[in-house]
Amino acid sequence: MSLPDSFEELIGLLGHFPGVGEKTARRMVFFMLSSDRSWVDALAHSIGELRERVASCEVCGAIATGPLCGTCSDRTRDRTQICVVETQEDCVAMEQSGVFGGVYHVLGGRCSPLEDEEVPSESLERLRMRIRENGTAEVILALNPRIEGDMTAYVVQEALAGMAVKITRLSYGLPVGGSIGYADRVTLHIALESRREMEVDKEEGR
Amino acid sequence: MSLPDSFEELIGLLGHFPGVGEKTARRMVFFMLSSDRSWVDALAHSIGELRERVASCEVCGAIATGPLCGTCSDRTRDRTQICVVETQEDCVAMEQSGVFGGVYHVLGGRCSPLEDEEVPSESLERLRMRIRENGTAEVILALNPRIEGDMTAYVVQEALAGMAVKITRLSYGLPVGGSIGYADRVTLHIALESRREMEVDKEEGR
Repeated sequence: MSLPDSFEELIGLLGHFPGVGEKTARRMVFFMLSSDRSWVDALAHSIGELRERVASCEVCGAIATGPLCGTCSDRTRDRTQICVVETQEDCVAMEQSGVFGGVYHVLGGRCSPLEDEEVPSESLERLRMRIRENGTAEVILALNPRIEGDMTAYVVQEALAGMAVKITRLSYGLPVGGSIGYADRVTLHIALESRREMEVDKEEGR
Repeated sequence: MSLPDSFEELIGLLGHFPGVGEKTARRMVFFMLSSDRSWVDALAHSIGELRERVASCEVCGAIATGPLCGTCSDRTRDRTQICVVETQEDCVAMEQSGVFGGVYHVLGGRCSPLEDEEVPSESLERLRMRIRENGTAEVILALNPRIEGDMTAYVVQEALAGMAVKITRLSYGLPVGGSIGYADRVTLHIALESRREMEVDKEEGR
């Protein structure tokens, strides 16, 4: 007995998810076969519509349903603070912690010479423009506590050199070697509360 | 910032899969957002079509694309041996081990008084009918090596009492406490090769 083609095809498609192997994918397919039909239909529909319904915010790059994301269209958010994150996912993790009242800036990339990645220069240019236009007082770097995050922080700091803005960074309350997307709310809260000002430029200026 | 509704909805839907929590579901959604669009569309389409394309075999209950599954429509399979499994998933695991040349019978349930489950009586009746019609020589019970599997084996054995058929069971080469769906091919092979005949009825008859 060979499995139906549509069955094998779906196993292959599900296997693209990180951490999902052939056996896990097969379990998922059998789970769908034995589950309530309305759930399966809703799942298929929701996945199919995802790209149509979800876009990127024109201002900060976070996920949005219209031209602006929820944060950027919320007039009560404090525009003097911009929290810089690497990905849309990190932005959601920060936001769900509920401890930040400012706005975001999604870099959309990180500095990693080993993997030949760099921070998109248009994103840095857009950040400079936002700081100038809004009179931003503080840029908070919420970057992953890894070597790539350190390098990315340095790149952002370089890009903002000479601007009248304070640059801070989340403290290493985050578990070193971890990832912002997996951090719990309490850890994110501690990390935000104990953020420290970056002082490299000041020392160089002495 | 609240997440777009379609985003939250999809996280909720994905969270129905066993072993998938909110964070895993969120990672999956972000993975879909950053992935090749054709893959996401194919995934949505494949999930949506699954129920239409996959059915149950009228004879043995295994997954099929037509009225009969691949095994039952294969004339070269040995009809003197019927392998009894609990679920369609177990049937696939057995079949993919490639060591069995007979046909299957999917019970579609197991005996578990604690969880108020029992083996569907129509499935047992259908098994009796198949044995009579095909002149089956051997029924091989490929049931999970757990207490529920033992009870299910007993129920099947009772249902076939008095029929001129040998009843065997996969040996405990399977790791005790495990599950057929997760067993590797080698273990399944050993378990099939060292299957033993059930002797309760013979002893009672003495």
